[in-house]
Amino acid sequence: MADQRRPAGLAVRQPLDSFDRMWDELVPIGRSPESGGYHRFAWTATDHQLREWFAGQAQQRGLDLVLDRAGNQWAWWGDPDAAIRAGRPGVVLGSHLDSVPDGGAYDGPLGVLSAFAAVDALRADGFAPGRPIGVVNFGDEEGARFGIACAGSRLITGALAADRALALTDADGVSLAEALNAAGRAPEQLAADRETLDRIGMFVELHVEQGRGLIDLDQPVAVGSAIWPHGRWRIDLPGMANHAGTTRLSDRDDPMLGYARLVLAARTAAERHQSLATVGKVFAVPNGVNAIASQVTGWLDARGADPDRLRLLVADLAELAAAEGGRLVPESWTELTAFEPELIRRISAVLPQAPLLATGAGHDAGILANAGVPTAMLFVRNPTGISHSPAEHAEVADCHQGVRALTAVLAELAGGV
Amino acid sequence: MADQRRPAGLAVRQPLDSFDRMWDELVPIGRSPESGGYHRFAWTATDHQLREWFAGQAQQRGLDLVLDRAGNQWAWWGDPDAAIRAGRPGVVLGSHLDSVPDGGAYDGPLGVLSAFAAVDALRADGFAPGRPIGVVNFGDEEGARFGIACAGSRLITGALAADRALALTDADGVSLAEALNAAGRAPEQLAADRETLDRIGMFVELHVEQGRGLIDLDQPVAVGSAIWPHGRWRIDLPGMANHAGTTRLSDRDDPMLGYARLVLAARTAAERHQSLATVGKVFAVPNGVNAIASQVTGWLDARGADPDRLRLLVADLAELAAAEGGRLVPESWTELTAFEPELIRRISAVLPQAPLLATGAGHDAGILANAGVPTAMLFVRNPTGISHSPAEHAEVADCHQGVRALTAVLAELAGGV
Repeated sequence: MADQRRPAGLAVRQPLDSFDRMWDELVPIGRSPESGGYHRFAWTATDHQLREWFAGQAQQRGLDLVLDRAGNQWAWWGDPDAAIRAGRPGVVLGSHLDSVPDGGAYDGPLGVLSAFAAVDALRADGFAPGRPIGVVNFGDEEGARFGIACAGSRLITGALAADRALALTDADGVSLAEALNAAGRAPEQLAADRETLDRIGMFVELHVEQGRGLIDLDQPVAVGSAIWPHGRWRIDLPGMANHAGTTRLSDRDDPMLGYARLVLAARTAAERHQSLATVGKVFAVPNGVNAIASQVTGWLDARGADPDRLRLLVADLAELAAAEGGRLVPESWTELTAFEPELIRRISAVLPQAPLLATGAGHDAGILANAGVPTAMLFVRNPTGISHSPAEHAEVADCHQGVRALTAVLAELAGGV
Repeated sequence: MADQRRPAGLAVRQPLDSFDRMWDELVPIGRSPESGGYHRFAWTATDHQLREWFAGQAQQRGLDLVLDRAGNQWAWWGDPDAAIRAGRPGVVLGSHLDSVPDGGAYDGPLGVLSAFAAVDALRADGFAPGRPIGVVNFGDEEGARFGIACAGSRLITGALAADRALALTDADGVSLAEALNAAGRAPEQLAADRETLDRIGMFVELHVEQGRGLIDLDQPVAVGSAIWPHGRWRIDLPGMANHAGTTRLSDRDDPMLGYARLVLAARTAAERHQSLATVGKVFAVPNGVNAIASQVTGWLDARGADPDRLRLLVADLAELAAAEGGRLVPESWTELTAFEPELIRRISAVLPQAPLLATGAGHDAGILANAGVPTAMLFVRNPTGISHSPAEHAEVADCHQGVRALTAVLAELAGGV
């Protein structure tokens, strides 16, 4: 590319144009005409459309498209295997293209598009990489269809065993194995993928912020420092099925009352222990208007900067659940994930104004960090803090600032030495 | 039958044996091997099996089987149309054979089996009816599949319009019209059925009690006096979808908290206004573990002896729902249904020990009473008060007392004069 002479300014403008063009291409895919929210779930027709789009972007740029054993897509500029032999494995940027049910446009795609735009920016400047550069689209980050978040990255690191993943079923009872078959993939290929991981010398994921940290700090871009410890607990509350019209109040064992007390206690405990607690999912059995429930099951999501406070919060609620005749059943627990200090230092050096910010949200970056890959994140300001919602938003100017920041980071990390 | 001479005692014993035999025949039909509860839903294969069983019982006794325009089954001893012309329309006993999801064995079938057993008892005694006697199996009383309780009786009285009923869909999206077609029925036959109603000079439904009234009164059988006023309201609570891991507590608009407050307030209001209030059904959107809900919808079932107190209860909760940014949407309201005083007087005269008891549960008897049919009920003691549950129960001795009581009532009502 060094022989392409361009007027000054174009090199800055062109990648932003390319970002805007890519954005316009993705806007209609998987969008609900009613809510404006996105329904982009793993191994569906919508997902195939997004994957085809990614493959097309790689092809347009002359990047080598590689699928790993979990079906994650990698677009390489340079030879990642030769780089391993040379002791200079690649720099990877990217994120995911799938969404939660009725999700926003930015969560995921912003990181993938910014990665392609950063590559475009370096090429427009005639940049000669000292390492291969990769752009990744991780599959099934949200876990909206099969229930496990970051499935694509968890599979290649081995954090999620292939046989367990293949048996996961969606709401229609379709297993991942069946979904892969239907998509023309070979389920038996699914496995941990050391070869793919070895190619990642460094990974930087740009993501829309999912809170209001950057609003308060009055900055468009932050450097991610850590992912808070977080966990999920199932709240099991048994009761006694009975007729709503004939059972005296004093004769009832109604688990919906205990559930209501737990929901309110979760909020109070979160305030007391300066953490976050949410009950967003609930099922009642038999879930009939004229039936006192025989069972109510809720799910508690708890996160916070301080793992000790988080444990106190959960202990409070476990005690209350027991007093209600039920229990909290742990479903997952992830310790604090700190991103790579040396990587953060280098990134902060090229982005001196960007504050450091921790997040309560899980990301593929966290999965790679826990697998030993030097990993960092960038966050782009979210003017409302709303995410996982059709109302999720980022200003165009802030997205462009994100592309510029990611370009500077990529130039630093993939530079000559 | 008058020429059949039997030894004393056999005439009493034989109908109870016939009751026990019928009971044993029905036990396995539609029973879940896991819970022991019943899944007997309208126009399913299980329902067909129950209808075939009913037809067989009619055939064994030489009763005339008649299907009305809603598919309810009637087994007649005597000519009901000749009786109308003679100004002495028939006495009908019966109930329903369908169940709620995972329901008990008694709710419904006890009334149908007791009706056949009462016929057997009168025949064993050589009774000569002064009016035709009918046994009825009302279809879809529980509304478990298509959502409308007492659909069979509502259809023939016109309380439920046929076109509205045909468009109802089950959880799989199958409409009643499609279900009828699949069952080999002609959906266009569905209509109000004045001819069938005219045949019912009196209707008496025996039913297992669904509360603990008879335990307290220490009696095996009661005479029903009324059905309490009752209603259903949908509780709509909107919120703002957001990420459970990144949204500060102070930035949240979480409708699950308002829902929890309403559930607890419903209980408190029920105590204050000496009524019953239940929230047994709830849906959250998107119902994700890591998502603050954008919408929670609950359903309030409220009943009580005093309609004014009930209105105060609902007003309290409507005010709270509004304070939470939501609302209560009325879905149904039924005024107090008083059974026919003259019928109650005659029944009480032959059952002098049976107390009068009102109920909070809806029944086909209530639908017929509101359509102007002279109607009454008998209740059989429930030793736990539990119903709509696999744990629903009645002692054999109390069931037999119910058959004896119903036999005495039938002899009185269908007697010579």
